[in-house]
Amino acid sequence: MAMILTLTLNPALDLTVRLGRLEPGEVNRSETLLTHAAGKGVNVAQVLADLGHQVSVGGFLGAANPEAFEALIASRGFGDAFIRVPGETRSNIKIAEQDGRVTDINAPGPLVSEQAQHALLKLLAVIGPEFDAVVVAGSLPRGVSAQWFQGLLAQLKDLGLKVALDTSGEALRAGLKASPWLVKPNTEELADALGHSTDVIHQLHQQGVEHVVVSDGAAGVTWYSPQGALHATPPKVTVASTVGAGDSLLAGMLHGLLSGDTPEHTLRRATAIAAMAVTQIGFGISDDAQLARLQNGVDVRTLTEQ
Amino acid sequence: MAMILTLTLNPALDLTVRLGRLEPGEVNRSETLLTHAAGKGVNVAQVLADLGHQVSVGGFLGAANPEAFEALIASRGFGDAFIRVPGETRSNIKIAEQDGRVTDINAPGPLVSEQAQHALLKLLAVIGPEFDAVVVAGSLPRGVSAQWFQGLLAQLKDLGLKVALDTSGEALRAGLKASPWLVKPNTEELADALGHSTDVIHQLHQQGVEHVVVSDGAAGVTWYSPQGALHATPPKVTVASTVGAGDSLLAGMLHGLLSGDTPEHTLRRATAIAAMAVTQIGFGISDDAQLARLQNGVDVRTLTEQ
Repeated sequence: MAMILTLTLNPALDLTVRLGRLEPGEVNRSETLLTHAAGKGVNVAQVLADLGHQVSVGGFLGAANPEAFEALIASRGFGDAFIRVPGETRSNIKIAEQDGRVTDINAPGPLVSEQAQHALLKLLAVIGPEFDAVVVAGSLPRGVSAQWFQGLLAQLKDLGLKVALDTSGEALRAGLKASPWLVKPNTEELADALGHSTDVIHQLHQQGVEHVVVSDGAAGVTWYSPQGALHATPPKVTVASTVGAGDSLLAGMLHGLLSGDTPEHTLRRATAIAAMAVTQIGFGISDDAQLARLQNGVDVRTLTEQ
Repeated sequence: MAMILTLTLNPALDLTVRLGRLEPGEVNRSETLLTHAAGKGVNVAQVLADLGHQVSVGGFLGAANPEAFEALIASRGFGDAFIRVPGETRSNIKIAEQDGRVTDINAPGPLVSEQAQHALLKLLAVIGPEFDAVVVAGSLPRGVSAQWFQGLLAQLKDLGLKVALDTSGEALRAGLKASPWLVKPNTEELADALGHSTDVIHQLHQQGVEHVVVSDGAAGVTWYSPQGALHATPPKVTVASTVGAGDSLLAGMLHGLLSGDTPEHTLRRATAIAAMAVTQIGFGISDDAQLARLQNGVDVRTLTEQ
């Protein structure tokens, strides 16, 4: 069991509405509305907890509506490293219709002041050394610069933490400059941040990024480490929702790496955990027997060096 | 100043999203998402508080998400007479587009157990005698029968309270059997509950309903009391949102009746308060000078007896 901190700088409250058919301009009646605390780091934390790790969650949380997060933190026994900021944590409304169509309406989050950013760095300086690894995941909130973000990752590294990064765009570009221990972009995010050069992986390894885990949906996952490259293809599954699949993959990779599993087993299990997330409306390890079946269905092979 | 209790058996959390154009099936970015505690009785309470009355709010509240209501209660200094029930208070999502189109998605509320219903009656037996009047407004939650609702109104009357009722459909039909002191349906709700007979008002007066206030949107308000009938036509206003207009009318009528104002002044002011609500995105008495101007613009005339 490892001690892991996950940081979500821009968490979100997911409001999922289910209804037969969305009729714009009309009064629609939904069957259910589910509210839950979300954001990449918060999702990763839940899967890590399912895998038996001791987890704290942190970042910035709107002081006006922290309840769903506080309830999750209490029920999962997480440590709370969230800095409260004035305003509401953003809400993302997902309208799911019977035919599978999903409409997203994403709201802006609160503005995070320099004072709050400073408070987070100060808190991390105090609690950071308790942890084996830290996951920094998701987008940057309003008010937080890519430059500050790079400094945050550098500070976490200086504290001796294994830093795993999962973000995109400018934040990914800036974050990579701090040479995190692990990075988990999908194919598109990697190309978007660093271009299509075949040299990208080599370059990242050269600058000290040890593990580059590139996900490509149903086509699988490629993991480039200094020891070589492995590719995993998940078994075919019926897709219920891809929400949390990438976060599950990241949690699974961390689990294997921090538990000292073999690379082959680490990638196989992580790929299976992600595949299991896809079969669920939520995510997380709800069924060990199903996970074992999925693991057996993962095809892992060694890639020849690029 | 009167002591007034408002009961909302099926309150709602209003989530208002503003965006340029809703594109179903796509990821939409909203400019803002505002959450506020709503429900007819809760709305009436706010206008009554603006008018200087001491107000308590009650009914049933989902224990899982009471925060917006508790914050409103604290900030307005309301008494809290809500029975907490398991589950979430329903959320009503309003998606407002730039061109004025509004899409509503209304979720079901929690199931209210017999135990909770009993708890409310018990609480009302204790605190009821403190109040001059009680407003019972809005729809019935799942689990609450029209028959129980009729019994609730009868109990409130037995406690010596002036009972004002604002609901529709089966709840209105059942509630009227308890002969409340005042009822405020709109034209459609009245016809829907009691049919189109011209005798309806006479019948209600006969059975002991003193005040029948029938609203008809921009066409105005007719108030039938044992002293006669008055009709008020509001001035023409630019409609920003009709949310809370009926609740504002009801609050205004109560205010006049409980303050001993003349009937003409009571109806004039109530109609102006409702017109003011229409000019706002929210409602409430935000501008005394504007209210005075609107009051001057209301046309009140006596109707000949039916």
